[in-house]
Amino acid sequence: MEPTSSTPLFDQVDNPADLKRIPREQLPALCAELRKVILDTVSITGGHLGSGMGVVELTVALHYLFDFKDDRLVWDVGHQCYPHKLLTERKARFHTLRQKGGLSGFSNKWESPYDAYLMGHAGTAASAALGIAMGDRMLGKKRHSVAVVGDAAMGCGVAFEALNHAGSLDKDRLLVILNDNRWSIAKTVGALSRHLNKLRSGTFYNRAKEAVHSLIQSIPLVGKGLDEKLGDAVDMLKNMVVPGHLFESLGFRYFGPVDGHDMGQMLEALEAVKKLDGVVLLHVITEKGKGVPGSEDRYDRAHAAKPQPKKKQEKVPVEPCVLQPVVPVSKPGRSWTEWFGEGMQLLAEKDPRVLAITAAMPDGTGLMEFRDKFPERFLDAGIAEQHAVAMASGLATAGMRPICAIYSTFLQRGYDQVFQEVILQRLPVVFAMDRGGLVGEDGATHNGLYDISYLRCMPGIVLMSPKDGPELHEMMQFALTLPGPSGIRYARGNAPNAGELLGWHGKHQPLQLGKMEVLRTGNDGAVLAYGHMVQTALEAAALLDKKGIHIEVVNARFCKPLDDQGVLALCDRHDRVVTLEDHSKVGGFGSAVLECLAANGPVRAQVQVMGVPDELLEHMSRAQVLEHCGLTAQHVAERFLVDRPSGVVR
Amino acid sequence: MEPTSSTPLFDQVDNPADLKRIPREQLPALCAELRKVILDTVSITGGHLGSGMGVVELTVALHYLFDFKDDRLVWDVGHQCYPHKLLTERKARFHTLRQKGGLSGFSNKWESPYDAYLMGHAGTAASAALGIAMGDRMLGKKRHSVAVVGDAAMGCGVAFEALNHAGSLDKDRLLVILNDNRWSIAKTVGALSRHLNKLRSGTFYNRAKEAVHSLIQSIPLVGKGLDEKLGDAVDMLKNMVVPGHLFESLGFRYFGPVDGHDMGQMLEALEAVKKLDGVVLLHVITEKGKGVPGSEDRYDRAHAAKPQPKKKQEKVPVEPCVLQPVVPVSKPGRSWTEWFGEGMQLLAEKDPRVLAITAAMPDGTGLMEFRDKFPERFLDAGIAEQHAVAMASGLATAGMRPICAIYSTFLQRGYDQVFQEVILQRLPVVFAMDRGGLVGEDGATHNGLYDISYLRCMPGIVLMSPKDGPELHEMMQFALTLPGPSGIRYARGNAPNAGELLGWHGKHQPLQLGKMEVLRTGNDGAVLAYGHMVQTALEAAALLDKKGIHIEVVNARFCKPLDDQGVLALCDRHDRVVTLEDHSKVGGFGSAVLECLAANGPVRAQVQVMGVPDELLEHMSRAQVLEHCGLTAQHVAERFLVDRPSGVVR
Repeated sequence: MEPTSSTPLFDQVDNPADLKRIPREQLPALCAELRKVILDTVSITGGHLGSGMGVVELTVALHYLFDFKDDRLVWDVGHQCYPHKLLTERKARFHTLRQKGGLSGFSNKWESPYDAYLMGHAGTAASAALGIAMGDRMLGKKRHSVAVVGDAAMGCGVAFEALNHAGSLDKDRLLVILNDNRWSIAKTVGALSRHLNKLRSGTFYNRAKEAVHSLIQSIPLVGKGLDEKLGDAVDMLKNMVVPGHLFESLGFRYFGPVDGHDMGQMLEALEAVKKLDGVVLLHVITEKGKGVPGSEDRYDRAHAAKPQPKKKQEKVPVEPCVLQPVVPVSKPGRSWTEWFGEGMQLLAEKDPRVLAITAAMPDGTGLMEFRDKFPERFLDAGIAEQHAVAMASGLATAGMRPICAIYSTFLQRGYDQVFQEVILQRLPVVFAMDRGGLVGEDGATHNGLYDISYLRCMPGIVLMSPKDGPELHEMMQFALTLPGPSGIRYARGNAPNAGELLGWHGKHQPLQLGKMEVLRTGNDGAVLAYGHMVQTALEAAALLDKKGIHIEVVNARFCKPLDDQGVLALCDRHDRVVTLEDHSKVGGFGSAVLECLAANGPVRAQVQVMGVPDELLEHMSRAQVLEHCGLTAQHVAERFLVDRPSGVVR
Repeated sequence: MEPTSSTPLFDQVDNPADLKRIPREQLPALCAELRKVILDTVSITGGHLGSGMGVVELTVALHYLFDFKDDRLVWDVGHQCYPHKLLTERKARFHTLRQKGGLSGFSNKWESPYDAYLMGHAGTAASAALGIAMGDRMLGKKRHSVAVVGDAAMGCGVAFEALNHAGSLDKDRLLVILNDNRWSIAKTVGALSRHLNKLRSGTFYNRAKEAVHSLIQSIPLVGKGLDEKLGDAVDMLKNMVVPGHLFESLGFRYFGPVDGHDMGQMLEALEAVKKLDGVVLLHVITEKGKGVPGSEDRYDRAHAAKPQPKKKQEKVPVEPCVLQPVVPVSKPGRSWTEWFGEGMQLLAEKDPRVLAITAAMPDGTGLMEFRDKFPERFLDAGIAEQHAVAMASGLATAGMRPICAIYSTFLQRGYDQVFQEVILQRLPVVFAMDRGGLVGEDGATHNGLYDISYLRCMPGIVLMSPKDGPELHEMMQFALTLPGPSGIRYARGNAPNAGELLGWHGKHQPLQLGKMEVLRTGNDGAVLAYGHMVQTALEAAALLDKKGIHIEVVNARFCKPLDDQGVLALCDRHDRVVTLEDHSKVGGFGSAVLECLAANGPVRAQVQVMGVPDELLEHMSRAQVLEHCGLTAQHVAERFLVDRPSGVVR
């Protein structure tokens, strides 16, 4: 007799065809099994937990009724897709989640024919699914196009643009499922979320429709003279008359709300909307982190779990999952994010004009304590980087000193506002770009590899990056003294302790606009490093010291304005100068150095640019990806060991 | 006795204080005078006509009731602001509109204390005004913050983000005026515009409120079983119960619609909303181009007028204004835009998968004929570049071959979608970037100076730029053969006829991925030019020929992938190589060349990068700004006349 499996139903399911053979009444039991598998696995691998746990029934119902090898399913921000992965021929590899060569933590079209997109930035699923629906119509292909969009993502401008467009179309068929769990990573903000709250607290499915019909028969249009205090009654009336009227006014047919954990209701609702033509929005209420122990009132904690320390990879007896906040706080040393959060508090204490802006990432950007301490000077714009940046510009116009804490990769979403609302107005907005550089497990969507390229071309901006935590504080303070815009870039993970490696004890070279900092001298070449890569350069120098090769290490500090004089002098002191950055080699810090040299005529040194190669990187750990990109201390040291140049004569 | 002025009221008004002295009943007459002045001036200077003519009463009413030297007024896309300029101490300089050293064609904070912003891209005014309102509150300053937003701009994602945020706030006071003229540059698209149409056709101001009150008293909630065909009745009910319910569901108090040309109604409405706390939206109905002869049914034609040929600058007897479409069609030669439009038709005829996407610019991007010929394969996303790009990605996913025609400067708005939805998915979306380079009179907001920098860092994209019209066609065709994303960049104005200058008759070097094209040889140096600057290089070569200096001229064709072999060989053939582009020198084509050289070791040539300097440029004609930037043929030739390098030894 075989040992009893704890997941007897799931054992029968490798793909949606298998799923369709499970009787309807057993689907809730299957959902329980799926939750167990996700919880057990993610508690070992780490990853985004809450979103996936919340959409188990929704995912099962979708695959039960649609055929997403042909029909198209676009997950808005793919980290909701763990149950989807388990049902689409990936269960055997699920334990490899977010590991090098393993499954990605997001939906990923390169991974499976069931995934239409690789998605990590929120809000675009409806646009993409609409495009697919249109293309299918034009090419005469009949299939369904479905987007699953979170309630916070629905507040993204691009999601509104998509709904606004879709709702005006006559020919296309699109199903948007609003997965409403009231949380993004933090609690969803904005008027839309209030609107959804009202819908939620109103009548459920169909009942709302009945109310409309009743009401319509009852309009005699008599009575008058109501006083002004009818707010609540008006709101109630609005919801009764027009459930989901925001979506209806955008041209969508609104259905719901449906209890996203009631399989019967889910199947019934999906079967109904599947038959409809036109653009339809189905409002599904879910609980983020449903089934995660201890997550009931701390959805933010349910967002992601960090991997447990590796013991044996194969079969670890799974302990009850202990959830961790997104940013680990217990590592030796302190993260860049923590340094930033602390710096914000110090600055806000000194200057009442200082305020912090986040785009739905108070925790990820290290601003939780700041929020508690300075609630009046903390603004969460929601997943709305465009608005966050433009609002910052307004605040600066009014005389405040806003610091926008936005991950490097997400600032791309507010690029045009950086240009028009900040650069063109020459306003002193500070962009604190966390996760600048390779981020590791989250992969291509979250790497912050382009901010130097896309910001360096903006006239008048000051761009800098610190070598360590204290220098981050100094740069933040310095940025507030500038009359115009600036950007400070720092990485994921722990800030290095550059002072320790240098044997500096309280030694400190004060910051000067556009001036580099020589950290150690040497006659066998030089590394000019930007930001946290200074640490890598120092480690490389230490390696080379052991071989009797002594290089100069310079902390660039500023990428713009570049220290032209310093660069030219450095390149005349040495035969070989290597620039080093955790950023794309295309248009990055190294290019700034090359531009300086081209503008100022020949120098002695041959300059080599070390940075992230121009390719799309798979997810892997940060250490692995640095190795892959050739950006370790060993790689830097090798540049001074092999192929020594004969030198260019002036 | 003095001669009778045709603008007796306006003669008394130089600033808002003067305006406030005009009796209310004379304001309509003043508006008529303002229209006359605008029409007379713009028919000579050229400029954006329609928007300003539509907001004359609104502008007068605003300045009559507010004090915008202190209160803040943010015009969303500043080209509505001509009447505003006339009322705010700029009437004497109004005839200098859009000329070098003269008034800018947009609102401009550098020009006047009455202008809060320099705005040229749509949709951000509410964000900026909200930021100002918040900053004022934090700093204890009491004043009004007002944003005037067009109905098309209201469909921008960022405007939605701002409303969504503002509507959830309790403390801030913001007045958003929705200037609803049903037109952006083309007719406004999207569900929002349908929604506004319904509001427009409904009851006017206050009457709607009465209906709400009546209705509330009449809810017995009896009756049922209405059939499904109640669509119209439901819509009617929605509008009666909740006028502006889209805005109300976002937390705004909605007032209107108000007839924007009825001064009495305007003043009454503004006086009412001025007293309110919280966030308020006032819906004003205007006619774009009000008072422009012949514009009644062609608002697109009323959008902008081109300058009349200069006779005498001082006092030209003004003839009745003859409006021109935005893109002049009668110049000798053909514009890049026309070449593109024609190319689109040729491609669409050959390939049923080809379709065109515009973001509210069917005319500006040259797609009017395409739209008429292929209505099924023409998509206007509205002023919603984010959605346009993400939708294009969906279309490509479905197997279509979308070509996104978006000005270089506006593609900044869709930058993150280029990254996530196109680059990461490796989809064959083609970006046709019109207005790449200096645009002239429209100035800083409209210059397309950064697209190479912000796109070149994106892995896997192919970037190219043609030397002339036929090459643009060839590149479009070539882009459709690529498996992944590509961008084609071309300029404002007429395409040069490179073949003529070269004496080529039908001669043609076929396009190869990442291969440059040598156009003429010479031993005294070389110019490696990108895109339309090839023409400038050829002209420079012709100038130098006369001095006995013979340079090689190379058409780069591709910026990415760069022709590494070609570049290295070129730089070994010559002592001096000049790269030439109509793009920022920071991170542009020249930097691509420098990166190639740094990666491949020393070459013979000293390389100089010629491009647009890293500064914010004022508005002036394209010829003037090229001169200012040192990018004329003369400037290029001078690089080979002075300071000849001694050569760098390998």
